[in-house]
Amino acid sequence: MKPRLRNDRFLRACRREPVDATPVWFMRQAGRYMAEYRAIRARHSLLEICKRAELAAEVTLQPVERLGVDAAILFADILLLVEPLGVGLEFAGGDGPKLRHPVTSAADVDRLRRFDVATELGYVAESVRAVVARLDGRVPLIGFAGGPFTVASYLVEGGHSTDFLATKRLMYGEPEAWHRLLSLLSSLTSEYLRLQIEAGADAVQLFDSWVGALAPQDYRRYVLPHARAIFAPLAACGVPLIHFGTQTAALLADMRSAGASVVGVDWRIDLADAWQRIGAGAAVQGNLDPVALLAPWPVLAETARGLLRSVANRPGHVFNLGHGILPHTPVEAVADLVALVHEETANRVGPT
Amino acid sequence: MKPRLRNDRFLRACRREPVDATPVWFMRQAGRYMAEYRAIRARHSLLEICKRAELAAEVTLQPVERLGVDAAILFADILLLVEPLGVGLEFAGGDGPKLRHPVTSAADVDRLRRFDVATELGYVAESVRAVVARLDGRVPLIGFAGGPFTVASYLVEGGHSTDFLATKRLMYGEPEAWHRLLSLLSSLTSEYLRLQIEAGADAVQLFDSWVGALAPQDYRRYVLPHARAIFAPLAACGVPLIHFGTQTAALLADMRSAGASVVGVDWRIDLADAWQRIGAGAAVQGNLDPVALLAPWPVLAETARGLLRSVANRPGHVFNLGHGILPHTPVEAVADLVALVHEETANRVGPT
Repeated sequence: MKPRLRNDRFLRACRREPVDATPVWFMRQAGRYMAEYRAIRARHSLLEICKRAELAAEVTLQPVERLGVDAAILFADILLLVEPLGVGLEFAGGDGPKLRHPVTSAADVDRLRRFDVATELGYVAESVRAVVARLDGRVPLIGFAGGPFTVASYLVEGGHSTDFLATKRLMYGEPEAWHRLLSLLSSLTSEYLRLQIEAGADAVQLFDSWVGALAPQDYRRYVLPHARAIFAPLAACGVPLIHFGTQTAALLADMRSAGASVVGVDWRIDLADAWQRIGAGAAVQGNLDPVALLAPWPVLAETARGLLRSVANRPGHVFNLGHGILPHTPVEAVADLVALVHEETANRVGPT
Repeated sequence: MKPRLRNDRFLRACRREPVDATPVWFMRQAGRYMAEYRAIRARHSLLEICKRAELAAEVTLQPVERLGVDAAILFADILLLVEPLGVGLEFAGGDGPKLRHPVTSAADVDRLRRFDVATELGYVAESVRAVVARLDGRVPLIGFAGGPFTVASYLVEGGHSTDFLATKRLMYGEPEAWHRLLSLLSSLTSEYLRLQIEAGADAVQLFDSWVGALAPQDYRRYVLPHARAIFAPLAACGVPLIHFGTQTAALLADMRSAGASVVGVDWRIDLADAWQRIGAGAAVQGNLDPVALLAPWPVLAETARGLLRSVANRPGHVFNLGHGILPHTPVEAVADLVALVHEETANRVGPT
């Protein structure tokens, strides 16, 4: 039995209902910029934290307690889903993830190990349950997974990439293998998000962070059908579905059409302009430049106020950054920003 | 006395006049993907090629002779302009440029060495004259400079950056120093482009390649006035002025308003959509994904044909990539693409 939710601003905004104040949470709100997080990371690896429910819950709750955000997001990694595929995933030092067996051909795609999501990723469901218990109804919990292009890019490149050369070469050169790979990922991702929802996540976000590397026609041909295949089976769950990417100014309408009810927007476009492209039928999430959190407070405050004013009184805005919190961000600035968003919007968002 | 131009497609398209075929050139069309270039680079450093007119001319002409493009672009580097500022510029191996004395404070800005552009960069004018002589009217020559945000980012970061943290911190934290730095760069850049035009360049392009890292309101506040200050004094020169950046889908109208007559577009937006945002009063340049040149020919050909169809019969399109040619690009694909663009559009672009 889930505890009754005492702060439902985030869920109301996702449904475009009036709220008592604009809800705010931050991508990567649990992370290295926070001393509490570094203290845990000093003793445990990233995968260890993800795989031990009490550690994942501890880290997930840190920003809720320190910042007063309106939603928690499960501490996890988008590559947890690919670990059971047998690609030799390693999180080595500060270099980000590396794969010993990248997927660069049709044969590689066929060699990927098929697995049962509930079995192999049961530990994530356990973390969700631990977080829900510890949150005890304070704020909702967001589950998440990586988007099909982004996860495929790690599989193909074997790590992070800047130009996605190998990924696009597979896409252009072996389109059947590409679609087979993305079909597999989509079906796993949809099951994985459902697992999190069934374990107690109140909303889920699909992070297709690098999808903005694609031309719009390539997005529509090579990725959109697979994003649809992820969201379609989840519609019946009745929880908000958030679709996020960066460098997506010209992809927003297509990303909305994939089936999400909330579209996450990066800072490279004015939020009101973005909302117009997305359409009034969806909520929006974003979109402060993460570097603004390292600016002097008057600059940060003015920028945040300008952002709030640009969508003032319009239900359906979840305040967030345009991408994750950067490592050198001062935690006080983040906490002060949360307070500012709440103060500036108190009792002002909804029909007047 | 300049030789009479025998192929003026590129200049006509920049002026939105009917053409006998869509003109095509490529950013970084002289570069490592070409064996002729590698042969020269094996014996000379980048700066040496830039500073010796006969070498710069040789490299500038290589793609004209090998590919049949409709314009040459001067072989140079956007950081030639900052070398005389006394920042300790070095081109070290494959790591890209490094600055021994980056500019991170107001005091650093004030310490920058002032210099006379015509004196310190006279060697660039000499290269322009050498290229014009060797081209002998075959195609027009494009001169270029780096845009204010992009050049400032190298100065502040001391090299290439991914999140532009130091650059934005200076911009937000010391706005007066920022504007002083960009005013200095703008005035030098405008003089530098004029120098190239007076030496014989038929058009100039401002490469503000990384400007898409900015939120639109930050672009308008911190960069646009300086881009205007570059273009305004050049309007009277009567040559096409091209303004280019990447990740600029939501900045295109602002970039157009800076005063260029042609806006360069990256591949992250459909070209027809981009043109609508830029406005019918300007020409457009772009916007194939550079990775498409590494795709199998039928995919490349279909993508290029789709791009051409999307703006068919509309004078004012210069075919190009959305960014520079990548090092592993097969030169044959580039040459075949030039032929395809010409064949597909022969006698079709203009009032019917």
